[in-house]
Amino acid sequence: MNGSLAIGIDLGGTNLKVAVVDRQGRIAAQQVGPTNAERGPQPIIEDMAALANLVLRDASSCGDCAGVGVGSPGPLSLRTGRVIRSANLPGWEDMPLRDLLAQRLSLPVILENDANAAAYGEFWMGAGRDGADMVMLTLGTGVGSGVILDGRLVHGHFENAGELGHMIVVPDGLPCGCGQRGCLEAYASATSVTRRVIAAMEEGKRQEAKGAILTPTSLRPGAGPLREASRVPSSLAWDASTIADRARQGDPLCSRVWSEACIYLAIACISIQHAFNPARVILGGGMAQAGAFLRDNVIQELHRRQWSLHSDLPAIVLAELGPDAGVIGAAGLVFANCHESW
Amino acid sequence: MNGSLAIGIDLGGTNLKVAVVDRQGRIAAQQVGPTNAERGPQPIIEDMAALANLVLRDASSCGDCAGVGVGSPGPLSLRTGRVIRSANLPGWEDMPLRDLLAQRLSLPVILENDANAAAYGEFWMGAGRDGADMVMLTLGTGVGSGVILDGRLVHGHFENAGELGHMIVVPDGLPCGCGQRGCLEAYASATSVTRRVIAAMEEGKRQEAKGAILTPTSLRPGAGPLREASRVPSSLAWDASTIADRARQGDPLCSRVWSEACIYLAIACISIQHAFNPARVILGGGMAQAGAFLRDNVIQELHRRQWSLHSDLPAIVLAELGPDAGVIGAAGLVFANCHESW
Repeated sequence: MNGSLAIGIDLGGTNLKVAVVDRQGRIAAQQVGPTNAERGPQPIIEDMAALANLVLRDASSCGDCAGVGVGSPGPLSLRTGRVIRSANLPGWEDMPLRDLLAQRLSLPVILENDANAAAYGEFWMGAGRDGADMVMLTLGTGVGSGVILDGRLVHGHFENAGELGHMIVVPDGLPCGCGQRGCLEAYASATSVTRRVIAAMEEGKRQEAKGAILTPTSLRPGAGPLREASRVPSSLAWDASTIADRARQGDPLCSRVWSEACIYLAIACISIQHAFNPARVILGGGMAQAGAFLRDNVIQELHRRQWSLHSDLPAIVLAELGPDAGVIGAAGLVFANCHESW
Repeated sequence: MNGSLAIGIDLGGTNLKVAVVDRQGRIAAQQVGPTNAERGPQPIIEDMAALANLVLRDASSCGDCAGVGVGSPGPLSLRTGRVIRSANLPGWEDMPLRDLLAQRLSLPVILENDANAAAYGEFWMGAGRDGADMVMLTLGTGVGSGVILDGRLVHGHFENAGELGHMIVVPDGLPCGCGQRGCLEAYASATSVTRRVIAAMEEGKRQEAKGAILTPTSLRPGAGPLREASRVPSSLAWDASTIADRARQGDPLCSRVWSEACIYLAIACISIQHAFNPARVILGGGMAQAGAFLRDNVIQELHRRQWSLHSDLPAIVLAELGPDAGVIGAAGLVFANCHESW
């Protein structure tokens, strides 16, 4: 595969991000537009092609383009280059995204799972760049993940490996959007942490309306799903960063929900350790905006639970590329040219 | 690597098994002797060499020997060919087994984790032979496992990947010999199932001695660790097969312990599905002597818990090679010659 540049596309439910990346992993030009997912696939694919042409023009002095990498929500069929379906992209059913985009751009296109593309970005140019075996967990709307062993993304027989957000960490635990119960995603995504805090506050309001007198410490200590009640002020715009801040300040509800997220992340990291034996597990996404407060909590819970048979605990580190990991990784896959479907 | 034969060695805590295997996976000659592990490593390595020479003599008319594969308990250092330590082999500390055996036999030697060797045997000649991506769980004294992706054993950065018996299936659950709590091994090994039934019977005796009147249904329905009490007759020689038989006949204690083993196996299979996306998970070891009663129970629990996003559930199948998987797999690794350390 020749060419000194590659296009990386990150197809999100909210934004469409297109970048031209050089072989050193630097973004030479970038465009971001709203996905407007409700329009269905065809206009979105047209937008992807249009933005790709824009960034190519912007970076035309930098060299030739080797091809296009697209990180897309899945499940996907990598062999046929199709999006099988997507929870956040209505109308994408068995959509031959790879070939449609290749036709429009007259360039070879690689399709990859969005979380895998981000993991590959961190592997190539971020927190995983000095090793061959790593796992990335992207703790955002859901918990996405990608696994790299011997420098290659793991896909497995059904091409859907590395969906570690759906490892079960609590038997018969909280329901997950996927239909299972007790998934890591139900405890450790930015969305689920926020949802649990808000649900507890609403329960608190209901109980106060019935005459209950709640204090911040009236939070029940058990692990019952979404039945906590608390008086945490509801005037804040709640997101994972706010919750991390308030947990750091000692708020009981936020501390408990944050701590449970870290405990189940640690338990997941132990299962990841024994499954893949990676050198490191990289934490990214909205939850990782809490930085060391996330990382150190997970490490602490990990050390409390680790085995004694071997010194093979992965290092827990923070992602380095932030929201650029997806486009950088998608472009990196073009250079690596590691897909047989090319 | 030339030669139509390879030697496979299965170094167990109880028995030492040495076989000559041809390129079709057939055992041409075999010797089994007691390990007598208390003797320490040197005499055992001499026995391995002596048994290898015996089987080579027995099979000398069949062709030349390409090399020796050894499946050993671990953790191991594959790069240096050393046994780092072993719970069942006293005195094996940083033991250069590969090189010591190669010197004695004047043949190249591959060292591999025993559960990985068994998994490779099933991949090469058993229940995994028509696919490239599989996981094997050996439910015996512990829960050993091996993972094969794209036709190769997964080792990971610390060379200790695929220790799936120590995935955590119950947060803060039963203690495991490894120092963690809630490992799959604590619920689904033949040993742990037997231990749990016996502990419940002993608790029953203690309670009856104090005047409690127990019936088989007095078994508490909760999941408290080892606090069950039951009147199940203690005259039987208890092992996993007996427990499976009695569970099949409806005995409440055995049914509950057996059922929990199957539930946690199903939960582990779901996490394995999302981690590796294998075509199949192969169940072997003492628990698998229950055959379809194990397999069908695990499948039933799996179907109750599976996700709805993709049709990527692995097939759950029984191992086919029984106790020969280890020697066949170890020999197969010689033919595959897939170790850089060769």
